[in-house]
Amino acid sequence: MAGILERYRDYLPITENTPLISLHEGGTPLIRANNLSKKLGLDLYFKYEGLNPTGSFKDRGMVMAVAKALEEGSTSIMCASTGNTSAAAAAYAARANMNCYVLIPDGKIALGKLAQAVMYGAKIIAINGNFDDALSIVREITSEYPITLVNSVNPYRLEGQKTAAFEVVDELGDAPDILAIPVGNAGNISAYWKGFCEYFEKEKAGTRPQMYGYQAEGAAPLVKGEVVTNPETVATAIRIGNPASWDKAVRALDESNGRIDSVTDEEILAAQKLLTSSEGIFAEPASCASLAGVVKHRQLGLIEEGKRVVCVLTGNGLKDPDIVLKNKFAMEKVDANHDSVLKVLGI
Amino acid sequence: MAGILERYRDYLPITENTPLISLHEGGTPLIRANNLSKKLGLDLYFKYEGLNPTGSFKDRGMVMAVAKALEEGSTSIMCASTGNTSAAAAAYAARANMNCYVLIPDGKIALGKLAQAVMYGAKIIAINGNFDDALSIVREITSEYPITLVNSVNPYRLEGQKTAAFEVVDELGDAPDILAIPVGNAGNISAYWKGFCEYFEKEKAGTRPQMYGYQAEGAAPLVKGEVVTNPETVATAIRIGNPASWDKAVRALDESNGRIDSVTDEEILAAQKLLTSSEGIFAEPASCASLAGVVKHRQLGLIEEGKRVVCVLTGNGLKDPDIVLKNKFAMEKVDANHDSVLKVLGI
Repeated sequence: MAGILERYRDYLPITENTPLISLHEGGTPLIRANNLSKKLGLDLYFKYEGLNPTGSFKDRGMVMAVAKALEEGSTSIMCASTGNTSAAAAAYAARANMNCYVLIPDGKIALGKLAQAVMYGAKIIAINGNFDDALSIVREITSEYPITLVNSVNPYRLEGQKTAAFEVVDELGDAPDILAIPVGNAGNISAYWKGFCEYFEKEKAGTRPQMYGYQAEGAAPLVKGEVVTNPETVATAIRIGNPASWDKAVRALDESNGRIDSVTDEEILAAQKLLTSSEGIFAEPASCASLAGVVKHRQLGLIEEGKRVVCVLTGNGLKDPDIVLKNKFAMEKVDANHDSVLKVLGI
Repeated sequence: MAGILERYRDYLPITENTPLISLHEGGTPLIRANNLSKKLGLDLYFKYEGLNPTGSFKDRGMVMAVAKALEEGSTSIMCASTGNTSAAAAAYAARANMNCYVLIPDGKIALGKLAQAVMYGAKIIAINGNFDDALSIVREITSEYPITLVNSVNPYRLEGQKTAAFEVVDELGDAPDILAIPVGNAGNISAYWKGFCEYFEKEKAGTRPQMYGYQAEGAAPLVKGEVVTNPETVATAIRIGNPASWDKAVRALDESNGRIDSVTDEEILAAQKLLTSSEGIFAEPASCASLAGVVKHRQLGLIEEGKRVVCVLTGNGLKDPDIVLKNKFAMEKVDANHDSVLKVLGI
């Protein structure tokens, strides 16, 4: 399948001079949750963005941003990142023969993501501060030097990301009742809403969904209505206290008659385990904030029985193997013979 | 996109009673290597199997094997695994509400793979032996108890895996000149060859490729022509000394006028870095044996200039982040301010 620039070019800011670069991003599976639909009394689907080329939804926005940077003659890109953005930026920069500079919060980035940025050949700088600090510095430097900023304040990022909403509608035939999504920097919820609105306006969809956003309890500025100075959560990808797309997200929530709420780290990890063991889909902790939120709101009666709900799973579980092995690791070790194994199996 | 059972049902052992289960496996990208084609003087493509649902090509065979197990009324599956097979088995077992038992060689399985099997809910048993020991025990136990063996000695596995060859031909319009592939248990090279032959017989392809198989030097029984008792390599997924599909692989090599050779761990890790930093594609070490082999054979003149070569990348690099961070980790750490960052950037 072609990449998103080719498939959705009529909906994207593409000119005849835009290089249609691609790592075959997008086209990710929308998986019907057969077991969990029954369990939760919903018509539930997962948009599994973990199968993008670098393992997260960030590839959609990054391919657009890097294509435009190339079109404009730029040779270097820079971003602040909790990990997924850096992986995407570094991969597309490698493919496009550009320099890539990445600022990450020291010690708070998942193992797999760090391995990615290292391997793709980015210049990585860890700062002793959080994501919001990193983003401030990146904004300053890219305003002074000829380096393209590729965080989601770069408007092309959200343009690319909105294609995920197109794919959901293309697959289901219309928008779902509810789109449930993790909220960190708040760009993705804004991008999905933009995508649903554009398809609705062009009559590719007959309806628009309610947008249900879920933050981690320790990093929930939108829920609290104020900046969180020291955000903390096991879901590192949404560990953000001052979202760049705050206003856009509030507009998406208002216009769609949606909801914003938070879930605890315990609820997130329980949702991760539920998802993996019930449906065979492994997503990183931040991704599972969407399912944790749906479980919570269904129990509270805030989501009615039978609704068609699409949960966005933003990143691959392989990005963060540590969290699994730290929390849930139990394995029997035995001698290499038939009888020892049988004994452990209990048969 | 539908899963492989639906897309290729006419080519698979599917009856009206076979449940068409799916996690949307297959349909993985065939990525043209723009930078490396130029560098190596080839028309080079990567079949990136790391974007299957559990991150490796094993999903193709496993969905077929689990569907047939369900059709036959089985409620439990079992396998020996260096990691990728266990992840696939556990995921499809979760989806199909079956029990899954996994035997792994203790201490020689990549971190991400272990995290997957744990999360998907398999019963994992580590033995103090290698893969070949584990497979022997699994063969014994599954012959005695009503548990379905899902290693590649289960013939349905190779049936599912051959669909990757179909996809290569569907995308290119014909078979490539050369199909380069890592060889561990030797099932995949056999499955690809079967796929190419079937498409050739049904006139979906006009030619068949030469099959070039690459083993790790420390685990190269096919190259040496004898069992390797203590296989050792950084490429854990092909750390196998006594391949189950030995004879089939030899036949594929003979019939296709192919080659089998080995590459060192250093060549494998260098190929991994080359692939990632040149094309933005991150694959696990075992995967990169194919590229390492192509680089080697190109330098030796054993692959002619301009040939169309497809390298199979069997698994996602995120499966094994440790190998990266152990070997190549270098990151600057600085204070969270504009000037400190500028200094490190050297601008």
